[in-house]
Amino acid sequence: MADAMQRLIGLLRQLPSVGEKTATRLVFHILSSPPDYGHALAQAVADVVERVHPCRRCGNLSETSPCSLCADPRRDQSVICVVEKVQDLLAVENSHEYRGLYHVLGGALSPLEGKGPDQIRATELVDRLGSEVREVILATSASVEGEATALYLKKRIEQAGVRVSRIASGIPVGGELEYIDRGTLALALSGRREMS
Amino acid sequence: MADAMQRLIGLLRQLPSVGEKTATRLVFHILSSPPDYGHALAQAVADVVERVHPCRRCGNLSETSPCSLCADPRRDQSVICVVEKVQDLLAVENSHEYRGLYHVLGGALSPLEGKGPDQIRATELVDRLGSEVREVILATSASVEGEATALYLKKRIEQAGVRVSRIASGIPVGGELEYIDRGTLALALSGRREMS
Repeated sequence: MADAMQRLIGLLRQLPSVGEKTATRLVFHILSSPPDYGHALAQAVADVVERVHPCRRCGNLSETSPCSLCADPRRDQSVICVVEKVQDLLAVENSHEYRGLYHVLGGALSPLEGKGPDQIRATELVDRLGSEVREVILATSASVEGEATALYLKKRIEQAGVRVSRIASGIPVGGELEYIDRGTLALALSGRREMS
Repeated sequence: MADAMQRLIGLLRQLPSVGEKTATRLVFHILSSPPDYGHALAQAVADVVERVHPCRRCGNLSETSPCSLCADPRRDQSVICVVEKVQDLLAVENSHEYRGLYHVLGGALSPLEGKGPDQIRATELVDRLGSEVREVILATSASVEGEATALYLKKRIEQAGVRVSRIASGIPVGGELEYIDRGTLALALSGRREMS
């Protein structure tokens, strides 16, 4: 096989869930497509690496810094939603339920993975808590690491005198109780709310 | 999401078995890798498109023309193995059972897909049948299209006075008769050989 093909297969194999066979299939697909496709793909990969960087304020990935979310004056500047990853930010944004600002931690506290407070942009979050911020919503995962991170951040944010909330845990929409795990059901019960 | 990311996701989605979610995951992986990886990936895609072309003699994909297989004097110049795709050539080559030349058709006869003899490099194959070629091995698929292609090529090659053979159909290595389909079993029976 041509060297250039082997080199590309080797690089594609480093992508998640792409093995030797899939990588080979992708390379043959690129070669059987019009050359314009391959050129556009190469350019798009280079553009992403060169142009997209974390927003220095919120950590969102963007071609500008501050990013378009931070720079949008129509967004509510008094609320910050804290998420672990940019993917989580996109998920919250796609819910169309939130119109405030974000803060991307870049992970959760995890001593085993060597992730301490200095690795998750915690101080950067506290530094953003000026007089205009009224509430911080902690939208970290409902995992052990996500909960530990939320507890840690709660203490630091309360010291700064800002209200802290945590997104609700419970039965997902469409979830049948029969198939919900014990832990989620326990959280759903303890987090019950009076019906109005 | 940043424009550059959306553009790359759109291009990655055109790859086989890559949907919106997978494409998004790949882009985030590229962005979380060292920039060197993304640059190498972009360069490798561009290299493949610019440098790799079909060998003008056998149709193999190569950075040179004639390709390294055609140009290798140690290979048996008296046999040509005919395959549908470059992937099939690589499969035969990986069997380490064959040391002759190849001819890649670029598909099989398929009236429904508009593939006639002119679309599968059949004349190019016949033009290669000089005095030094003793045998042509037809290694097209065991599908309806592959068999039709083999039959068509057999006639044309025999007119040129060259011996034609067809790769064997039958039970694959490790195959249990219980689970082999009827058609394969019928071929294996009719193609039985005396044991020596």
